[in-house]
Amino acid sequence: MIGIVIVSHSHCLAYGVCEVANQMAGNEVKIVAAGGIHDGDQWQLGTDPLRVMAAIEEAWSEDGVLLLLDLGSAVLGAEMAVEMLSPEQQAKCLLSNAPLVEGAFVAALQASLGQSLAEVNVAAEDVLRMQKFEREIYE
Amino acid sequence: MIGIVIVSHSHCLAYGVCEVANQMAGNEVKIVAAGGIHDGDQWQLGTDPLRVMAAIEEAWSEDGVLLLLDLGSAVLGAEMAVEMLSPEQQAKCLLSNAPLVEGAFVAALQASLGQSLAEVNVAAEDVLRMQKFEREIYE
Repeated sequence: MIGIVIVSHSHCLAYGVCEVANQMAGNEVKIVAAGGIHDGDQWQLGTDPLRVMAAIEEAWSEDGVLLLLDLGSAVLGAEMAVEMLSPEQQAKCLLSNAPLVEGAFVAALQASLGQSLAEVNVAAEDVLRMQKFEREIYE
Repeated sequence: MIGIVIVSHSHCLAYGVCEVANQMAGNEVKIVAAGGIHDGDQWQLGTDPLRVMAAIEEAWSEDGVLLLLDLGSAVLGAEMAVEMLSPEQQAKCLLSNAPLVEGAFVAALQASLGQSLAEVNVAAEDVLRMQKFEREIYE
């Protein structure tokens, strides 16, 4: 079963995504938050490649680890984190283009069903084509 | 300037989205979190239409209020909240199909630029067509 890492600029946001995704996946999947920067005293907004790397290690599975991201510099932080891993580990990490929250919910569910890293990511990225509701009522 | 409400099953998730969106918009836009259910003692996962309604009132602007949502039942909670408002207020509320986090970031930025409710929502929903990064490196 693959692991999942949630990379966000906000500690609270990443934690909240894990909270809901864990409930959806019946706590069967390792979903680890890597949000914000801790300055030794409190949480600041930002992404810390070392925290992302530690989260990948914590979520580690030989089946692979999927990383979901919020903004541009979260992508940079995640890329730097992956580059710090061994080549064998790098080959099993995949950055997702899925929307962070919706993608994490779908990824957690698919991962809990034993889908492969590529399959989980395809399902998560497919969320981009889904509508949450029909628009007619409010337009 | 429009207001924005973040509806999520998780209190922490909604708060975190507001935290980052506020920073992006230079704290110029009213962005209010309506996440989770408070049982009088602690936060539980879920959405509470009364909390969403209170958040709409708090974010209220005559220019309108955009609601961004996570999952299916957040849509229901938001729809119920809007139905509790006066017809005049209802006409100025818009539920967005945008992805929660990415949509909120874009919406906050566009709202801070003085865009209309419809314009902000179009920009937020357009995020669905954006790629966070080029895929080639990790495939």
